[in-house]
Amino acid sequence: MPVVTILGNPNISVEDKREMVKKVSETVAHAYNLPIETITVLVDALPADSIGVGGELLIDRK
Amino acid sequence: MPVVTILGNPNISVEDKREMVKKVSETVAHAYNLPIETITVLVDALPADSIGVGGELLIDRK
Amino acid sequence: MPVVTILGNPNISVEDKREMVKKVSETVAHAYNLPIETITVLVDALPADSIGVGGELLIDRK
Amino acid sequence: MPVVTILGNPNISVEDKREMVKKVSETVAHAYNLPIETITVLVDALPADSIGVGGELLIDRK
Amino acid sequence: MPVVTILGNPNISVEDKREMVKKVSETVAHAYNLPIETITVLVDALPADSIGVGGELLIDRK
Amino acid sequence: MPVVTILGNPNISVEDKREMVKKVSETVAHAYNLPIETITVLVDALPADSIGVGGELLIDRK
Repeated sequence: MPVVTILGNPNISVEDKREMVKKVSETVAHAYNLPIETITVLVDALPADSIGVGGELLIDRK
Repeated sequence: MPVVTILGNPNISVEDKREMVKKVSETVAHAYNLPIETITVLVDALPADSIGVGGELLIDRK
Repeated sequence: MPVVTILGNPNISVEDKREMVKKVSETVAHAYNLPIETITVLVDALPADSIGVGGELLIDRK
Repeated sequence: MPVVTILGNPNISVEDKREMVKKVSETVAHAYNLPIETITVLVDALPADSIGVGGELLIDRK
Repeated sequence: MPVVTILGNPNISVEDKREMVKKVSETVAHAYNLPIETITVLVDALPADSIGVGGELLIDRK
Repeated sequence: MPVVTILGNPNISVEDKREMVKKVSETVAHAYNLPIETITVLVDALPADSIGVGGELLIDRK
């Protein structure tokens, strides 16, 4: 605890995930005044045919 | 915002997802009195060996 | 199963929730070709000081 | 309802999931004093390059 | 990691939560073959006017 | 999209949330190479009697 879930698209490299997880964990640990060891970050992904914005699937938006 | 997450089985076609996302987004936008552009819908899926109902995996239920 | 989670703001009346839950359940049951009895809908809420869009809390956006 | 989500690693066999879902459902049904039929359990998984603990991806922790 | 989320109704005592969290953590730790220290359990709750089953709010079901 | 959910304890001030949301949104936008306007951050909270770590509620851990 705390637990951070990031739901984005699958086009993110392991290097970008590594850097993102590090920075997000530092930011969240600082905000809650907790040791960084207590922070869990989960990076999940959904394809563009499974995400809708404004009533349209991302694959249909121009 | 709002964010809608739909967790179902993987046997849904892109066409059914498209129609479902459109209708759900319209319904939710109407209920919250917000423009449809603000609605995000995430359609996630789990296989039948990873869902339990009544203590049994779906693959074990008759 | 399926499980639908709707995360919105707290300013929604019970009547609007009732109608939204009914319509969303019908839409999702139809899309997955499942009886409506199998659909669970969870309507959660967060206050405007706990939601960020574009890097800003909703209470700070004009 | 209730809905239980278990987010773990992908290295769990169907047999272990089956037993886990049975026991967790019984425990949760007992705690809420509800029939086990009302319990839904979702077992989701993320790979080790998508989970961060203490600011580091699991693939980077020794 | 793993992270377990239990979404139920608010009518659960701290004692029942305590016992549930202990048993669920033991079960999940055993299933994933991990030390119990790695298990996080989050017990969330929604009121009966915010949960729909079969298209109806729980407050409307007999 | 992307959607970030941060589940922590309730003892976080609005100012700390504001700064956290800003930094997390910037970090996530950068990682996915997307405009910050597309990032939604949800800051949820649970009391210490509803969170278990290592099989124990936080209120019971010394």
